[in-house]
Amino acid sequence: MMDADVIVVGGGVIGTAIAWRAALAGRTVTLIDPGTDDKASLVAAGMLGPVSESVFGEQDLLALNLHAIDRFPAFNAELEAASGQPTGLRTEGTLTVAYDSGDLAALDRLTEFRHSIGLKAERLDARACRKLEPFLAPSTRGGVLASGDLSVDNRRYLAALRAAAATVGVRTVVGQVTDVAAGLVRFRPGPGETTELSAAHVVVAAGWGTARIEGVPDPIRKAIRPVKGQILRLRHPGNLPHIISHTVRAIVQGRDIYLVPRADGELVVGATQEERDDRDITAGAVHDLLRDAMTAVPAISELILAEASAGRRPGTSDNGPILGPVQVSQPNEAARPAATGTAAGTGALIVATGHFRNGVLLSAATADAVAALLAGEQPHPAWAPFHPGRL
Amino acid sequence: MMDADVIVVGGGVIGTAIAWRAALAGRTVTLIDPGTDDKASLVAAGMLGPVSESVFGEQDLLALNLHAIDRFPAFNAELEAASGQPTGLRTEGTLTVAYDSGDLAALDRLTEFRHSIGLKAERLDARACRKLEPFLAPSTRGGVLASGDLSVDNRRYLAALRAAAATVGVRTVVGQVTDVAAGLVRFRPGPGETTELSAAHVVVAAGWGTARIEGVPDPIRKAIRPVKGQILRLRHPGNLPHIISHTVRAIVQGRDIYLVPRADGELVVGATQEERDDRDITAGAVHDLLRDAMTAVPAISELILAEASAGRRPGTSDNGPILGPVQVSQPNEAARPAATGTAAGTGALIVATGHFRNGVLLSAATADAVAALLAGEQPHPAWAPFHPGRL
Repeated sequence: MMDADVIVVGGGVIGTAIAWRAALAGRTVTLIDPGTDDKASLVAAGMLGPVSESVFGEQDLLALNLHAIDRFPAFNAELEAASGQPTGLRTEGTLTVAYDSGDLAALDRLTEFRHSIGLKAERLDARACRKLEPFLAPSTRGGVLASGDLSVDNRRYLAALRAAAATVGVRTVVGQVTDVAAGLVRFRPGPGETTELSAAHVVVAAGWGTARIEGVPDPIRKAIRPVKGQILRLRHPGNLPHIISHTVRAIVQGRDIYLVPRADGELVVGATQEERDDRDITAGAVHDLLRDAMTAVPAISELILAEASAGRRPGTSDNGPILGPVQVSQPNEAARPAATGTAAGTGALIVATGHFRNGVLLSAATADAVAALLAGEQPHPAWAPFHPGRL
Repeated sequence: MMDADVIVVGGGVIGTAIAWRAALAGRTVTLIDPGTDDKASLVAAGMLGPVSESVFGEQDLLALNLHAIDRFPAFNAELEAASGQPTGLRTEGTLTVAYDSGDLAALDRLTEFRHSIGLKAERLDARACRKLEPFLAPSTRGGVLASGDLSVDNRRYLAALRAAAATVGVRTVVGQVTDVAAGLVRFRPGPGETTELSAAHVVVAAGWGTARIEGVPDPIRKAIRPVKGQILRLRHPGNLPHIISHTVRAIVQGRDIYLVPRADGELVVGATQEERDDRDITAGAVHDLLRDAMTAVPAISELILAEASAGRRPGTSDNGPILGPVQVSQPNEAARPAATGTAAGTGALIVATGHFRNGVLLSAATADAVAALLAGEQPHPAWAPFHPGRL
């Protein structure tokens, strides 16, 4: 007798989306999560743009991101309806701005590239940029409006996923998972305690923490690393109108900065990328984020610094996510990646991690892909390059 | 029948020091305080330097500060003994550094001035500065070591004052004082409630909030204004040695910045001076404080930003504190400042506020002065220019 049809390890946006969709398909689902605020999902900005500097040349990841953003609005609408909670979806798009001729040339290439893959992109002169966003710095030379880009409030989005999961009976257990095997999960519900749960399927969606779980095949554990990001949450004082309405991106002194506005007056400024695994808020990072944000939009100096937080994104050796079944013969024996294309059989382990900077964007498509695997089907072809067998 | 010999309004470092010393002299003392964290005493850095840019030309204030710093060590030793709590007194002194020839010339004037009033000051070249503080920026051109300057941990200092007051029976009542009159204090212990306490003497030490208390003479209320200060508390990560051991001051882009180290690894960076009465932490202020601190000591970028806080200092129309009795004939009648030199009679109101940036430094001398007034004696002559009658 199994404890559940599916056990999901990890309660961030990936794990919770998987749990919700699996339960929606009629399965009994248990989600195991440490229950702390140490989650990349809570630190993120919720910016949903399929094209960024980092995927400019990575065709497979770009194709996956395009698939993911196509899927997102319908998934999000269903989520809001199921949970009864708004996720703060914004559709104004992203305005990427330039400060010199080098930046402008890069924006021309980005515009051309977006057009070549069928995405919207409109080159704007400085005057047009400032018409859209009147508080942009006077030094703004021009920009590109990507009107198809989206954003959600990542915290509201996770809260809605949790609420939706609860409505279809997902059971959440607090604990730190230490070992996984075929059909078995061992975890610590509290200090010094150890317990086990069994299920037909185990899905590991523990972000960078996947690297610390025994039983996950070594090639996967070795491919995942934490990439620290520090991020700021600003708020408008009562008397100030909202100073931006689009997501604004800029390259300031070689660093990519983004400003994501919320309808409730929050403005998220991100983010550092650091090869460290602590969660310290450092003086240098806060300074640099504020300086870069104020370079793009000087009036940010008047906003309230409400929160500085740090998270650890699950980076991978090739910057792509890792999604698919891995073959494990018996509980307590070492698991190894399944051959490419193998569907998950009963007792198999499914891994869904390594979403790096794109966790929120990829969450809907990931939940679909895992739902397909649980049903013995193949996920969308955009996922093929991201099978664990590649590692 | 009076409720107490003395009622002190305000539980910051000034009010608590007054309450402790009054009780130590055998009086029954009640201290009324709102009990919130909205206290300039909790935001301060605890830097105790009698000479700063702001008092360079103000002879009366300088004389008072010199009297106060002479008094401080013995008072502090007695406080630590009485409370059983260390206040974090540091005696390494203040190193003020310069970045250009203009700064250096200003430091020469400061050195000469300190010598002229009998204070220690040693001009150091860049090499000697960096020998004292190896993490100073390479752009440091020279400095002055003021080895007589002190600092305490302002929060530990306030905690010790509270503990010492408790040991001699000071009774603390939580409430927001609304009105004072001769021998009478009216306050709100909770929302919608109003109550009164009577005493032979009432001492108002409510910082800038003194301006909002009915019954305090109008000339005093009008002379006091809140001057907002934002300040940062940094911490060393576990693996980093403490990066400074002296209080470090510098003028960066025309702004005075100070860095006050604590033995426990905290490093306080201050402070803005803003003519505002909110307590918002603003993006611009945090950015400027971090930039200026990192200009002086670049390694500060590696420290943890543990806290940003804002307080409202009690500024006055002439930058000096206000200390002395004001004559009030009867409860509920309007009070007016007493003529200069009038000692406090029974039923009089004593005001002790307007300490602006020097609250911790002046706290010991203020407690002595109020103790003298309560005993029908004159305070130290350094206080004479700061009588309420001047307003």
